[in-house]
Amino acid sequence: MKAAIIGYGNLGRGVEKALARQNDMTGIGIFTRRDPETVQSAGLPVYATDRLDEFDIDVCILCGGSATDLMTQTPDIVRRFNVVDSFDTHARIGEHFAAVDAAAKAGDKLGMISTGWDPGLFSLQRLIAQSVLPNGETHTFWGKGVSQGHSDALRRIDGVADAIQYTVPKEAAMAAVRSGQGARLTTRDKHLRVCYVVAEDGADTDAIRTTIVTMPNYFADYDTEVHFIDAKTMAAEHQGMPHGGTVMRRGETAPGMQQLYEFGLQLSSNPEFTAAVNVACARAVHRAYTEGRRGCVTVFDLPLAYWSPVPAADLYKSIL
Amino acid sequence: MKAAIIGYGNLGRGVEKALARQNDMTGIGIFTRRDPETVQSAGLPVYATDRLDEFDIDVCILCGGSATDLMTQTPDIVRRFNVVDSFDTHARIGEHFAAVDAAAKAGDKLGMISTGWDPGLFSLQRLIAQSVLPNGETHTFWGKGVSQGHSDALRRIDGVADAIQYTVPKEAAMAAVRSGQGARLTTRDKHLRVCYVVAEDGADTDAIRTTIVTMPNYFADYDTEVHFIDAKTMAAEHQGMPHGGTVMRRGETAPGMQQLYEFGLQLSSNPEFTAAVNVACARAVHRAYTEGRRGCVTVFDLPLAYWSPVPAADLYKSIL
Repeated sequence: MKAAIIGYGNLGRGVEKALARQNDMTGIGIFTRRDPETVQSAGLPVYATDRLDEFDIDVCILCGGSATDLMTQTPDIVRRFNVVDSFDTHARIGEHFAAVDAAAKAGDKLGMISTGWDPGLFSLQRLIAQSVLPNGETHTFWGKGVSQGHSDALRRIDGVADAIQYTVPKEAAMAAVRSGQGARLTTRDKHLRVCYVVAEDGADTDAIRTTIVTMPNYFADYDTEVHFIDAKTMAAEHQGMPHGGTVMRRGETAPGMQQLYEFGLQLSSNPEFTAAVNVACARAVHRAYTEGRRGCVTVFDLPLAYWSPVPAADLYKSIL
Repeated sequence: MKAAIIGYGNLGRGVEKALARQNDMTGIGIFTRRDPETVQSAGLPVYATDRLDEFDIDVCILCGGSATDLMTQTPDIVRRFNVVDSFDTHARIGEHFAAVDAAAKAGDKLGMISTGWDPGLFSLQRLIAQSVLPNGETHTFWGKGVSQGHSDALRRIDGVADAIQYTVPKEAAMAAVRSGQGARLTTRDKHLRVCYVVAEDGADTDAIRTTIVTMPNYFADYDTEVHFIDAKTMAAEHQGMPHGGTVMRRGETAPGMQQLYEFGLQLSSNPEFTAAVNVACARAVHRAYTEGRRGCVTVFDLPLAYWSPVPAADLYKSIL
């Protein structure tokens, strides 16, 4: 199977690494809207995106951003190639699905959207848990990890030279869900927001702190810690991209008979893990396409056996 | 969708409860090899198993035991009806699959085997984790919960009137896996076996203890605690059927870049939870059969959307 990487930021670099670990896939190249001469890959050749049609590609793995790229890029490319994307704007998934489905059917191709871990693996867990335990409630906790959106919001504040925000799940809230006290939890109860800020010389740090903790949507509804650090500490201690989270569903199978379903990830590198999910899903897309599937699908719609390079009969023996 | 329950032990009783919670399913009856007059259900009518062919049934949910019933019962019934079973003898799944596949194809039906939580949900988690993190290692921990096989082994010892065995995962071993020290763990490191034994009057408890802790396959390779209790305590404190467990995979996406995947269940009632999984899988079987699927399948082989009564478009909006 021949895979192409479309876009070469953190996610694209992760896909390049993940492809190198598969025996049944070949990365045929990285496609970028930048000047290919300026892009230094880890090994794969780099081409301009407008040369995509010159290549024989089984699946394109789209590594652009949800905010600016994927809503136009995925429908555009799925007219010509099978695709996987990790579109993650939950509120617009229905709209994106419809556009990708129409374009894929017009092009006789298959696209899988919103892979990754949330949406993606977390969504799968919610689906299983809700199907098995229809009477119950699901809670999702994120972190400890870096939120790019919240970090960007900090960096837009006057006087801020650089900043990073960690989302931290509160242990007490997770314990409350496990013990059946989850229903009364508020937004503030569930997560802590921890900000590390490099202020510009002479900036008013009290004013920055106030702007942060009162910022609507991003911080006002949370307990927020603000720590001012210097640029050297930022460079030394805050360059990783860890993340993770937990999906829990507690439900009952009879009055008072409680069952707890819990799924968690602790990721040293958020983009590399998302990339690894994308690559497994690209395999599933290729297989389903070969069997005649067309249009748009999600992680809910293809058998999980298709994620694996191992033949089904061997899976039954080794891991069923 | 009309479902029948075949066999009425703990699992069958759990399926009856689970069916009562579904809006899209009707339990049409319980079928037993015992005299139906002697079986008191929670509400569904009880019939002799040999009357099965008189009924219009979409899926039979087989609730017999793996050791004695399912290897003959599942192939027999799938010649006439779609089935789900929770066959759990890992070493014989290949053989069972082949028999069910042949019988289902001969009868133009669909059967799904080895649902439940292990095999079943745990198998799904192993498959996802291994597909996403091909370089890594998977560990499974069971408990805290009752092992029927080990409890039965205790009860066969001379001088034992009653007994129960709890499998308890060792926290230190789970922590070792999370931190990347899982490879060196032995069987003894991973689980503790805790036995509660009611001795017969005048029995030699030292001899019983020695027989237990040295019993090959069951206890010799483990740290085993033996507690002698009276029959009243057994009746008061050890009648529940809790279980649970954890599947973990720690893998790397680049040298030194560690990613931890963890799935856990804590079940107040093992048979009721297994029943709940069976019922969700019965829905999946019915849908796949309607679409033309025939033969034998497992949890790896059908889309997870089929487990849910919610239409796919609504799933994308609500839980993707």
